[in-house]
Amino acid sequence: MSISKGYHVAVLGATGAVGQQMIKTLEKREFPIKKISFLSSARSAGTVLKFRGEDVVVEEATPDSFNGVDIALFSAGGSISKIFAPEAVKRGAIVIDNTSAYRMDEDVPLVVPEVNEQDLKLHKGIIANPNCSTIQMVVALEPIRKAFGLSKVIVSTYQAVSGSGTAAIQELHEQTKAIIHGEPFEPQVLPVKGDKKHYQIAFNAVPQIDKFMDNGFTFEEVKMINETKKIMHMPELKVAATCVRLPIETGHSESVYFEVEREGLTATGIQEVLSSAAGIVLEDNPSEQIYPMPANAVGKNDVFVGRIRKDLDEDKGFHMWVVSDNLLKGAAWNSVQIAESLINLGLV
Amino acid sequence: MSISKGYHVAVLGATGAVGQQMIKTLEKREFPIKKISFLSSARSAGTVLKFRGEDVVVEEATPDSFNGVDIALFSAGGSISKIFAPEAVKRGAIVIDNTSAYRMDEDVPLVVPEVNEQDLKLHKGIIANPNCSTIQMVVALEPIRKAFGLSKVIVSTYQAVSGSGTAAIQELHEQTKAIIHGEPFEPQVLPVKGDKKHYQIAFNAVPQIDKFMDNGFTFEEVKMINETKKIMHMPELKVAATCVRLPIETGHSESVYFEVEREGLTATGIQEVLSSAAGIVLEDNPSEQIYPMPANAVGKNDVFVGRIRKDLDEDKGFHMWVVSDNLLKGAAWNSVQIAESLINLGLV
Repeated sequence: MSISKGYHVAVLGATGAVGQQMIKTLEKREFPIKKISFLSSARSAGTVLKFRGEDVVVEEATPDSFNGVDIALFSAGGSISKIFAPEAVKRGAIVIDNTSAYRMDEDVPLVVPEVNEQDLKLHKGIIANPNCSTIQMVVALEPIRKAFGLSKVIVSTYQAVSGSGTAAIQELHEQTKAIIHGEPFEPQVLPVKGDKKHYQIAFNAVPQIDKFMDNGFTFEEVKMINETKKIMHMPELKVAATCVRLPIETGHSESVYFEVEREGLTATGIQEVLSSAAGIVLEDNPSEQIYPMPANAVGKNDVFVGRIRKDLDEDKGFHMWVVSDNLLKGAAWNSVQIAESLINLGLV
Repeated sequence: MSISKGYHVAVLGATGAVGQQMIKTLEKREFPIKKISFLSSARSAGTVLKFRGEDVVVEEATPDSFNGVDIALFSAGGSISKIFAPEAVKRGAIVIDNTSAYRMDEDVPLVVPEVNEQDLKLHKGIIANPNCSTIQMVVALEPIRKAFGLSKVIVSTYQAVSGSGTAAIQELHEQTKAIIHGEPFEPQVLPVKGDKKHYQIAFNAVPQIDKFMDNGFTFEEVKMINETKKIMHMPELKVAATCVRLPIETGHSESVYFEVEREGLTATGIQEVLSSAAGIVLEDNPSEQIYPMPANAVGKNDVFVGRIRKDLDEDKGFHMWVVSDNLLKGAAWNSVQIAESLINLGLV
């Protein structure tokens, strides 16, 4: 990637859990930047953040903050994206939006570069970054679909609190301390900040992420179902999800059952395909107790896959365990990766 | 239950996590006891435990410890059961064994009273208590099978450390403290005491419970598969399991996908059947954020079921979330419940 050509990059939501990882990822990747703008709500404006060793003052986002911006990374909540994305596009920026605001819009590509990078060519200013739990699953499913076909997916997730932001991370820490020291505590953030009731997350499992829909599924589960079909261009794919929040700071895990179209396939066939697939690290050696775990995935950009085994009853059925850092491949890294793809495809 | 007739009851493994709950459960249920014996390894012998306000000294188990015993509750590990169960039976005791030693023996009934109490009539001295994660699932599945038929089950578990004993509980506590205080720690117990490698459990998810089999499934997963078929008398039932250990002290949760035989069934139909089923508490009101969680299930004998919803693609497919105290319905309570059934059926 040429450093000689540089872009004006803006990060909206710079002080949040994902925003912080976006900034770190831009630094790590040596992203070609001629100017950086850190934007936030009025509440966080004035915060001083480091970027490549220099102090950068976070500014309150206004429509004019996007004057001259080439690439804007958004991660400040869906309602904020709805306000500022059209303004940024009007001013010539390409918006890579990490909220659910535009993901299912027909005009907005929903992109995981390992799966559907070419969809970027259809963008009209806004590109959506999928939900964290969706991204890591489709990275693992796409090479399988390509090689053997895919007809059905049933996933149960094991999700970390950082997917709910810094307030949720803090709540897990403080609640854990309180329980260990036998002190009282009052849940105030999880499972969903804006919902009516809040429950203990430390040493507990909460089967609710995001609000409930009328069909009994949560919005997180519906996101996984709909986004998977859109990203993989498979409206006919059968997908079901159960999403669960756990006392883990960072790193989502997924127990994925899937059915291929190929008959007589073995687990080894799946392992071979995934061992050379982009963005995937195969960690699958049961006799040596090698399998992915969130504690090992934190800070890494890869999707880790293991526990691949053939179903004992369904010839076309398989199980696997998929783990990734929800703040990186699930959010910040996938967004920056989209920006890199835009450059590589000559779209920016 | 008549208190006038009393039994000589022995608890083998009295100082363990399950043994302690067995003792508490015998007290709570006012089980008709004329004499109680607490037995253990030489290491724990001499410990003084309370029973109904009286001190009871734990004795080292020997074959002759079972002289005169009517009902022996075993929970001291499979190899110990293999040594002492035949000795106890030889001396006239009925053994209710909470290890995996005899569960798949054709001659040994594997019993969850809500599901197959009548199998107790076939016992030849030993009755096996199923695996904790199996018990709570079959309690929820059996009323569904009875009403609508059942053809397929895919379960992903969210299991607490107490299923691995007191050393695992201690490890979770100490590791959590170390991480919170930024101190070093060395995993020594989980995921499997007797396996080669040990991994962090605090703030992590470990997709291994018990050792791996040649087919890539863990023994815990194979137990869930085989025991479910045996208890439900359904050798043809398709069952698959993925078992995961989590940083939760007590309370197992399960994300269960299942297919019924009845066409056109609604989630309401499943809820109606479960709302009046033995041993089950229905907690299923998404609009009020009512669903089961392990933190609420601890100390209770029931199996809690919620998040019941119809699959969006499969007419016969449904999802549910099943939670129970793994030390109670998953172990101690189911064992004492079997003993109560033996009395009620006139088998002891």
